[in-house]
Amino acid sequence: MRYTKYFTITLRDAPKDADTRGHALMTRAGFLKQSTSGIYSYLPLGLRSIRKIEGIIRKYMDEACSVEVLLPMVQSSDVWIRSGRWEVYGKEMLRFQDRSGRDYCLAPTHEDLLADMLRTLVNSYSQLPFNLYQIQTKFRDEVRPRFGLIRGREFIMKDAYSFDMDEESSLVSYEVMRQAYVKLFRHMGLDVREIEADSGEIGGSLSQEFVVLSDIGEDIAVSCTSCGYTSNAEVAAEAFGVEADSLDVEALSESLKGTKCTRCTTGTNDVWRVLELGHIFNIGTKYSVGANLTYKGKDGKDRPVHMGSYGIGVGRILAVASQIHSDEAGLQLPINIAPFEVCIASATTRDVEVVNTADTLYQQCVEAGIDVIYDDRDVRAGVKFADAELIGYPFLVVVGKRGLASGTVEVKARTATNNTTDTDTDNDTDNATVSLPISDFPAEMQKILDRARP
Amino acid sequence: MRYTKYFTITLRDAPKDADTRGHALMTRAGFLKQSTSGIYSYLPLGLRSIRKIEGIIRKYMDEACSVEVLLPMVQSSDVWIRSGRWEVYGKEMLRFQDRSGRDYCLAPTHEDLLADMLRTLVNSYSQLPFNLYQIQTKFRDEVRPRFGLIRGREFIMKDAYSFDMDEESSLVSYEVMRQAYVKLFRHMGLDVREIEADSGEIGGSLSQEFVVLSDIGEDIAVSCTSCGYTSNAEVAAEAFGVEADSLDVEALSESLKGTKCTRCTTGTNDVWRVLELGHIFNIGTKYSVGANLTYKGKDGKDRPVHMGSYGIGVGRILAVASQIHSDEAGLQLPINIAPFEVCIASATTRDVEVVNTADTLYQQCVEAGIDVIYDDRDVRAGVKFADAELIGYPFLVVVGKRGLASGTVEVKARTATNNTTDTDTDNDTDNATVSLPISDFPAEMQKILDRARP
Repeated sequence: MRYTKYFTITLRDAPKDADTRGHALMTRAGFLKQSTSGIYSYLPLGLRSIRKIEGIIRKYMDEACSVEVLLPMVQSSDVWIRSGRWEVYGKEMLRFQDRSGRDYCLAPTHEDLLADMLRTLVNSYSQLPFNLYQIQTKFRDEVRPRFGLIRGREFIMKDAYSFDMDEESSLVSYEVMRQAYVKLFRHMGLDVREIEADSGEIGGSLSQEFVVLSDIGEDIAVSCTSCGYTSNAEVAAEAFGVEADSLDVEALSESLKGTKCTRCTTGTNDVWRVLELGHIFNIGTKYSVGANLTYKGKDGKDRPVHMGSYGIGVGRILAVASQIHSDEAGLQLPINIAPFEVCIASATTRDVEVVNTADTLYQQCVEAGIDVIYDDRDVRAGVKFADAELIGYPFLVVVGKRGLASGTVEVKARTATNNTTDTDTDNDTDNATVSLPISDFPAEMQKILDRARP
Repeated sequence: MRYTKYFTITLRDAPKDADTRGHALMTRAGFLKQSTSGIYSYLPLGLRSIRKIEGIIRKYMDEACSVEVLLPMVQSSDVWIRSGRWEVYGKEMLRFQDRSGRDYCLAPTHEDLLADMLRTLVNSYSQLPFNLYQIQTKFRDEVRPRFGLIRGREFIMKDAYSFDMDEESSLVSYEVMRQAYVKLFRHMGLDVREIEADSGEIGGSLSQEFVVLSDIGEDIAVSCTSCGYTSNAEVAAEAFGVEADSLDVEALSESLKGTKCTRCTTGTNDVWRVLELGHIFNIGTKYSVGANLTYKGKDGKDRPVHMGSYGIGVGRILAVASQIHSDEAGLQLPINIAPFEVCIASATTRDVEVVNTADTLYQQCVEAGIDVIYDDRDVRAGVKFADAELIGYPFLVVVGKRGLASGTVEVKARTATNNTTDTDTDNDTDNATVSLPISDFPAEMQKILDRARP
């Protein structure tokens, strides 16, 4: 992609709505733009990252034999009345009427519709087990949208649902999904922790959250310094018999002082602020009983289907990665979710040899299948370098006069910070630079990219 | 993909809501399921076709240097009030309030929001021209949803928008998009005609529709039998000075009797029923003036940006293809938009050699990158064959005992009908069958697939 044929805008100043560093940088880097409170437009660079995140999720969902579907965003009240949630779901579910005065909502989640739909499609044990997923836009009318895509109102989610004959089979399906989650977050280059959660309003017997540590975390986790067992604050509060509503780090740390881990009984506990990226639930039969989703067993008897539910916040992954993997100069998204892996920039546009070399290297990269953007703008080199740092291309290739004399170009790595908490930003501000021979550039670049992947 | 790990359901009978053959077949073949009036869930096979259609659209949009974005579905009234359309847009725009009582709508189209958003991002001539597109879910509260995905309320559209300095440059952008449309419909294997349209409520100077002939067509086109010039009914009615509201085929045919073509002045006119798949508009400055979307020219003066708008109904393509490319036994979707290109079926599951051979051929196809589904169900061969015809896999590979004796398998083509009107369904009901050697199956199968592509 040539910059001059692309559409992107970088901004010097953070917008008014930017209440976190990650969101400020995403806006300045031209990843997205706020449309109205809690609702965003994805600009080309941001959407490119989103598509990569979706691609990684699809890869591991497909490998886990989950099959993709797409359910509607506008749902009739009928479904929700049948599932018993039309009256009890809070104001996060935005309700309205169509031109004929019939009641609808914007779906905040899809268990109800899916179980309702499958009632007429699933009859026999021979159809079980199966697992369906979708990557879809949902709407929750949050009373206080904040942190950009972290708590927006319109947002992209991956939600998967497993359908099994009994609890035993259902736990196998749950474990397959759990492992897929571990793999997909690792592939994205994110340091994600699994923590035990209570299953809350979804119901069911087993539930885990996938979280990252962050000082803007909206949730709290309690982790044993010895055995590593980690749970969310609600589970910990119950285990330790402290107040579940004392959910701030200081209060909980104070309550847990001197306690010992409930799992290994020897370690002490750390209290972390965390952001949730994924949440998996073994639901049991709550929705299937409500929706009358049953199957006929080998003995001819009807039994309720056992369900599991598996969510991932797609936009939230991008927002959280931007918050954690960034420094003062800009974003440092992990290579597999950065919008482009390589940016080629000519240090000058006034030297024919430099421009021709940059053109050639770009063409060679495209032909080699390298995910590259070519900053061919007629602007000062400093502008290109600053934009490259702000956008956070994992590798910036600089084609300059001095390098040409020795037949090389410079490759600067936008060093990924290893800080797992965003308070720790002062490491790795220097970028690692190597020289590569022009004669064998694409192959050498490819090796660097391969080594950089998690 | 193994059938037993997949999720799909074929139905013997068409559902109540099926008012066209294509929609009845899509429902019976397990492509989709109605959720409520005009709103559908895409099941795995249907979504797979949709993803292929989207992939083809992306390929040609990217080639035409259009850049992908994603704009929100829920839009504040502010944008529409600024563009002057909040009050005048009809009831197709579903309006509602959020929990704070602020006005919103479900976006029926995105010109208004996009022009409004770009006002703050575009300043200079140096940013022009550019072209943005999205593939996104829209909502239009149709008073009478019908024909399944052809006229639904929630639907997937590709909409692109071009931004140019002046009319001349804008016409170049329009032509690039027009050519991309011709290529992408050809790639899908659809017999699409370009017709001259009036630009209606969108405004502007130039407009073309991309249509297919169909006896369930909601629109009418008038075409010269000599030079081929074709226009929609509104344009024809104006050219011939007949009533624009006499828009039924018989009345218009009667009105045009003895007329001569307005372009070549010699040919006579055919009147067709058509379904619109795409529509392109050279808008001019209507939206940019409304949204104050201007750029500073080289002379420092502000001028309004010239826009073009380019739509394609993604779900509609699948629905129309299902209507036109089908027979009594089922769907016959063109190879590049069929959910799978090849289905392998074992004629029996009681013969170890047959099952092992089918397993092996399936594995070899997967490794060769062939888009294959393997019907490994323990059901009668007749059930597999009937489902294969209903779903319309372009090629069905039958592994049977008799073939094995001579080292071959049978490949049956689900012959694509060449009928461009869906009244003409009685041709090509026989399937062409060839034998392929098991020893070199994937390579030979690949050759057949390559030859079958448009």
